[in-house]
Amino acid sequence: MTVLAVDIGGTKFAAAAVTPDGEILVRAEVPLRGPDSADAVLAEVVARVTAEVPEARIGGVGIGSAGPLDPVKGTVSPVNIPSWRGFPLVDALARMLPGRPVRLAGDAQCMALGEWWRGLPERERPRTLLGMVVSTGVGGGFVIDGVPYVGPTGNAGHIGHITVDPGGDACPCGGVGCVELLASGPSMVRWAAANGWTGPDARALAADAAAGHPVALAAFRRAADALATAILTASALVDLDHVVIGGGVAAAGPTLFDPLREAVARDAGMGFLRRLRVDRTSLDRDAGLFGAAALVLLAPQA
Amino acid sequence: MTVLAVDIGGTKFAAAAVTPDGEILVRAEVPLRGPDSADAVLAEVVARVTAEVPEARIGGVGIGSAGPLDPVKGTVSPVNIPSWRGFPLVDALARMLPGRPVRLAGDAQCMALGEWWRGLPERERPRTLLGMVVSTGVGGGFVIDGVPYVGPTGNAGHIGHITVDPGGDACPCGGVGCVELLASGPSMVRWAAANGWTGPDARALAADAAAGHPVALAAFRRAADALATAILTASALVDLDHVVIGGGVAAAGPTLFDPLREAVARDAGMGFLRRLRVDRTSLDRDAGLFGAAALVLLAPQA
Repeated sequence: MTVLAVDIGGTKFAAAAVTPDGEILVRAEVPLRGPDSADAVLAEVVARVTAEVPEARIGGVGIGSAGPLDPVKGTVSPVNIPSWRGFPLVDALARMLPGRPVRLAGDAQCMALGEWWRGLPERERPRTLLGMVVSTGVGGGFVIDGVPYVGPTGNAGHIGHITVDPGGDACPCGGVGCVELLASGPSMVRWAAANGWTGPDARALAADAAAGHPVALAAFRRAADALATAILTASALVDLDHVVIGGGVAAAGPTLFDPLREAVARDAGMGFLRRLRVDRTSLDRDAGLFGAAALVLLAPQA
Repeated sequence: MTVLAVDIGGTKFAAAAVTPDGEILVRAEVPLRGPDSADAVLAEVVARVTAEVPEARIGGVGIGSAGPLDPVKGTVSPVNIPSWRGFPLVDALARMLPGRPVRLAGDAQCMALGEWWRGLPERERPRTLLGMVVSTGVGGGFVIDGVPYVGPTGNAGHIGHITVDPGGDACPCGGVGCVELLASGPSMVRWAAANGWTGPDARALAADAAAGHPVALAAFRRAADALATAILTASALVDLDHVVIGGGVAAAGPTLFDPLREAVARDAGMGFLRRLRVDRTSLDRDAGLFGAAALVLLAPQA
């Protein structure tokens, strides 16, 4: 069966028809045009996919959404979509495509599952994978033995909001010294600006770091140290084989991954931590769509 | 079937015959008498149990052991038992009691499983439980939907060696600023002594804290802060319902749990973290034996 995969981010919606072999038959992507357009944009991306792939061929719907979300109730409350608070997204899609299973997970959880399914060669599939999105925020999701691990409330994998700097700043989440305050794109830019760097955004910061600008380099090292601590923490708790990282900050490539791998190697003490692989995603933006599809395609048969 | 449960600590060995209803029919406990006595002590506790419960009634063997261990190979290398390095404990017990399943997990993993099975009323059983032992070291284990989560190498749950003080001391594990450096009994005593407290051990430190000694109180607050950070980190990643803590430091009761619950409440930001219950074990030293038995009694039928 072909699955309708829906990927709901903070600033854009994407949808695709994905076959059980992992082929994307048709894809639609639309930016969110304003605070009240979420329902219309959702309807539009779904209509664009079903215009090309007949509804009768669609056997299920998989959704990855920016959080917070409640996968038990099937509701989402994406921070950047104020008109959706506790929005019953699963019900809304079940009404558009009645009689099919509709499954929902977090965007980073879908990214991890997409990476597991389509990003890694089958013989290299890890037993324990952490997928991370390092971008405007920092999110994560686990895939354990091929199944997304979401926890009782669906919130497992919140690696952006673990404390890596106990004496640090208060985080909007209510915690202190969270990873996101050190390693998200906007946090890196803010820190660099406070230390004399001038530039518009994280992409410019990455370019300057690659060109050797000392403050930009320091911002990436600082982010890499925070990410390394978080990754080793997750490994010590969950016994990870592999970490795959996507998102805008990961697009900096070696500028991020060189200091990150160095910090992981430096701080990994116990033997079982030293097998950990840390890679950049090979799928980029499609990881989320593949993962959303896999929620249905790889689900245990009921 | 009745199970032989074996609990191997750094300084003592215990064994018991445990029925499927969770009744302990007979129990034996022997201190380790010297660096070379491990094999003899193991044989002695097993012999004492099988003297009372006929071998024919014993249908399996469950072992919880101090780490490190390799549950895949069935070997253990307890730090405080130098004569056992990669010791084939599963094979050794399979030879003593042939033809039965023999299962091995870490001591803290067994403590968590024992707590899940026998410490908590059935209707209060959490979907996600972290069991911790705070004692000479700090260890942990997860039980997820009634099954110990041990990870691909069997090392999941190493909460004592996650970094909560990134600028802190080097840890013997090879990491930096680990929980164990702040919250184990010997670490607390060391810190208090460096700050003017005089006393022999963590038990005396707890008594002085309960009596209002300011340095002793500060040592417990410092440990509680480290444990709270670690517990909230595990919750953000694994989406925990409940944490149960045993071990010598937990025996301090409110002296530990008051500042610990305060710190958890203070630092828990995201909504799903705020449901977390943090309790002292109700089973004390039997948790490990119950958990070792549960490795066999609750195992999915092959």
